Amino acid sequence: MTAELAGAERIFFTEVGPRDGLQNLDRDLTTTQKLDLVKGALEAGASQVEATSFVSPEWVPKLADAEAVMAGLVADLPHSDLDRIRVLVPNRRGLERALRAGARRVIVNLGVTEAFNQRNLNRSVAETVTEIGQMAQEAVRAECVWDASLSVAFGCPFEGRVEPTRVVELAAELVAQGAREVSIADTIGVADPEQVRQLVELAAAQVPLSWLSLHLHDTRAMGLANALAGYRAGIRRFEGSVGGIGGCPFAPRSTGNVCSEDLLHLLWRVGAEIDVDLAEMCSLAQGLAKTLGCDLPGRLYRAGVWQPETAQSPA
Amino acid sequence: MTAELAGAERIFFTEVGPRDGLQNLDRDLTTTQKLDLVKGALEAGASQVEATSFVSPEWVPKLADAEAVMAGLVADLPHSDLDRIRVLVPNRRGLERALRAGARRVIVNLGVTEAFNQRNLNRSVAETVTEIGQMAQEAVRAECVWDASLSVAFGCPFEGRVEPTRVVELAAELVAQGAREVSIADTIGVADPEQVRQLVELAAAQVPLSWLSLHLHDTRAMGLANALAGYRAGIRRFEGSVGGIGGCPFAPRSTGNVCSEDLLHLLWRVGAEIDVDLAEMCSLAQGLAKTLGCDLPGRLYRAGVWQPETAQSPA
Repeated sequence: MTAELAGAERIFFTEVGPRDGLQNLDRDLTTTQKLDLVKGALEAGASQVEATSFVSPEWVPKLADAEAVMAGLVADLPHSDLDRIRVLVPNRRGLERALRAGARRVIVNLGVTEAFNQRNLNRSVAETVTEIGQMAQEAVRAECVWDASLSVAFGCPFEGRVEPTRVVELAAELVAQGAREVSIADTIGVADPEQVRQLVELAAAQVPLSWLSLHLHDTRAMGLANALAGYRAGIRRFEGSVGGIGGCPFAPRSTGNVCSEDLLHLLWRVGAEIDVDLAEMCSLAQGLAKTLGCDLPGRLYRAGVWQPETAQSPA
Repeated sequence: MTAELAGAERIFFTEVGPRDGLQNLDRDLTTTQKLDLVKGALEAGASQVEATSFVSPEWVPKLADAEAVMAGLVADLPHSDLDRIRVLVPNRRGLERALRAGARRVIVNLGVTEAFNQRNLNRSVAETVTEIGQMAQEAVRAECVWDASLSVAFGCPFEGRVEPTRVVELAAELVAQGAREVSIADTIGVADPEQVRQLVELAAAQVPLSWLSLHLHDTRAMGLANALAGYRAGIRRFEGSVGGIGGCPFAPRSTGNVCSEDLLHLLWRVGAEIDVDLAEMCSLAQGLAKTLGCDLPGRLYRAGVWQPETAQSPA
């Protein structure tokens, strides 16, 4: 886990395509195809991969094979690589399933607004915070690291604007409870670079920035500009989905997570240290596009990393 | 032409889709469809529209109807709106055709590197600068405003990296010759935000920034982050194509110009004043997607401008 002990410009990158990307696609992948995707992202150098979600199969049928995915990883990966696998657990029942399946790192979720949290988790924010506290104890007893994500941290489809102070307050509370990472999520893709900068600056006063991650969506094309604003404000943890697959169930026709290789390429271009091999990540996106039979939203996997030194005069 | 006398945060926006976007599409539009696109962009509030190119029909068959497009605009548009139409003229012959067709504003092109300019215009950079001087005189005699664009200003497919001092030198020379606007073009989409900032800061010492425009491509997903870097460094003129249509003949499968409505939305979100009605520009993109029968690269036209004040609690 080199990136967790990293230099000042080193990026800790979490590939969330196998979870957040796939759950919003029209097409299903087989468990084997999902395993190949997870392993491909690990091999390309992602610091960690969010491999699946132990959500109720009735809610998200596409992730009904969570146990099978986890079993495949436990069978195939060396111990050290298993530490780079994270799975989403929406509730205590999901956590129990994940632990039974051998998960060593989980992420719990909290909607920042009452309306979103109620709709998404069927509980008040306070009830979810309490439940997270219980889940945290259970995870720790099983020697499982836990992270938390804060959904709709920049805007909510039901309540509109979200106060950054509220987000920071919740982030600080989760860190105090023992979350290893708190992911600030622009779930519906409405943040702008100024908002990101303001939120990160506000957060820096209360939470070590090395604990915070940005989970951005490119719904309105601001994803990479937002990531850059976050990077400049001190964030070093980012999430993305290979090829930019995914979307949001609350915003039909919207594009999904920021594209992993596009994001990492931008950060690299402005001086960040990245562990991911961009060409390998582009190959992974290319393979996925072939499997899915369509172009993906990502750009870099189509154009390739520019190699100025190999530019040639026309014949 | 309010935007040319604008406030400090006011954006002068040139819609280049009908020229740069369409010339790189697989599908042809009819002249009537092109005219609708140009007029739609004017109605949506684009400061100007690059309507076509008087390039040899043998080079770019898709723009062989340049005379017909111009005739349609001359027939349909009031005089004041005709001032908001610009056409590309690659050489003296193109300029003659444009002037005969009634163009009141033209843009000439210069590749910043010898190899690109040779390949694109079949002349050395110095020869093209001389020819531009002659074309400028001809344009001015016809009371036609002229702009210039500098291709491959951030990187060249044949020569690799481009020295920013060279770009600034050429921009200053063109301004001195009388160009009303010099457009700095990232033709193959290789610029990053740091490069943009450095080039603009360097340029500011030699050319009034209000003379310079940024023409960015989103080939590697950095287009909007680059635009924001340019805006923060003082640039107020931008170009884009509705829906993000287009590409680059030298980079197969690459995506094209930055998307007009995505770009303007970002600039608006960080405090710029824009004259374009985003909802109207989104409708235009939506119509174009329907005409072309495919999703376009743009994001905003699919997701819509977020209206936090109309967000509603779930039923």
